[in-house]
Amino acid sequence: MIQQIEITLPAYPRGYHLIDSEIERQLPNLPGVGILNLFIKHTSAALSINENADPSVRDDFESIMNNLVPENEDYYTHVFEGSDDMPAHIKASLIGPDLSIPISKGRLNLGTWQGVYLCEFRNRGGKRKIVATIYS
Amino acid sequence: MIQQIEITLPAYPRGYHLIDSEIERQLPNLPGVGILNLFIKHTSAALSINENADPSVRDDFESIMNNLVPENEDYYTHVFEGSDDMPAHIKASLIGPDLSIPISKGRLNLGTWQGVYLCEFRNRGGKRKIVATIYS
Amino acid sequence: MIQQIEITLPAYPRGYHLIDSEIERQLPNLPGVGILNLFIKHTSAALSINENADPSVRDDFESIMNNLVPENEDYYTHVFEGSDDMPAHIKASLIGPDLSIPISKGRLNLGTWQGVYLCEFRNRGGKRKIVATIYS
Repeated sequence: MIQQIEITLPAYPRGYHLIDSEIERQLPNLPGVGILNLFIKHTSAALSINENADPSVRDDFESIMNNLVPENEDYYTHVFEGSDDMPAHIKASLIGPDLSIPISKGRLNLGTWQGVYLCEFRNRGGKRKIVATIYS
Repeated sequence: MIQQIEITLPAYPRGYHLIDSEIERQLPNLPGVGILNLFIKHTSAALSINENADPSVRDDFESIMNNLVPENEDYYTHVFEGSDDMPAHIKASLIGPDLSIPISKGRLNLGTWQGVYLCEFRNRGGKRKIVATIYS
Repeated sequence: MIQQIEITLPAYPRGYHLIDSEIERQLPNLPGVGILNLFIKHTSAALSINENADPSVRDDFESIMNNLVPENEDYYTHVFEGSDDMPAHIKASLIGPDLSIPISKGRLNLGTWQGVYLCEFRNRGGKRKIVATIYS
């Protein structure tokens, strides 16, 4: 069986944000066993899973990724949408738009320390749409 | 229900290439709702999703990824298949071999600006095989 | 149909490790056609697919990823779990926790040179849990 909904996230500031509870609030009751596929319909934001406790991890994600793909490099050619745009595309591709998370006993089977991140790479990304597909 | 086909892409030059229409042309009719899983059977090419309009984005992908994982670093040990080989493995792993894309109303439910990229990291990668699995 | 098991990997040293045979040994008989989803329940280890033959590829993965995300950068703030911890989180997010691999003719439909990697980014990561979900 397949269930599918579209989730609209409110605009988040640039950075890494825990969105588990926002996502779970909008999902239907989960099946006993299955997979939840999350897919973000954008090219300058991404979905990841990482540490859900200490906010300093998410701060370091933002600064390390900025260091890895800096803005305003001389050799960039796609520059007319702002200095944050092309780095955002690269970061989004490195992290990826999709996650497939196992469902067990009616719940997302994440590890103790795992949370779902919205990775917002634009200064003003606006609302973001995620398609959630559950198969069981 | 599961349907599965193998798609052979023609040899593309090194770089980032939009392959949506090539993929969709070879797929069977899509179900109303489901997931399309794409999996590339290679270790020096990858699949990604990003901006489908301005070709300068794809040019910058190529140059930024080359800058991130340069060729000919002194400390590389796996060098006998050419200077583009080991960087291609790393890039392929960073971007990843698989994508799971939602299907809605009989179509791939991509965002307006999203297209599927073949990321060809070898100078002469040759034909590339993708397994496409649709479940509904 | 969905089948799901949890696999516990023994503690591996920091680095990249082929785990195909370990995974396949613990899986039930595979269906004729389907998908295997693998999901690692940790935030400082990841799953990838890459070259299964020459061990020097896996050695270079370790050194290139260490070069990409170095330890002990001055600007890191999440430092109290050891110098390998924050880089491990970033690497895990870049590579990703999940893989969806096609099953064809009762076998994982990997390319000739593809193997499944456990990417252990901690010095002492301990045992690692993977949820394997097969749908067919």
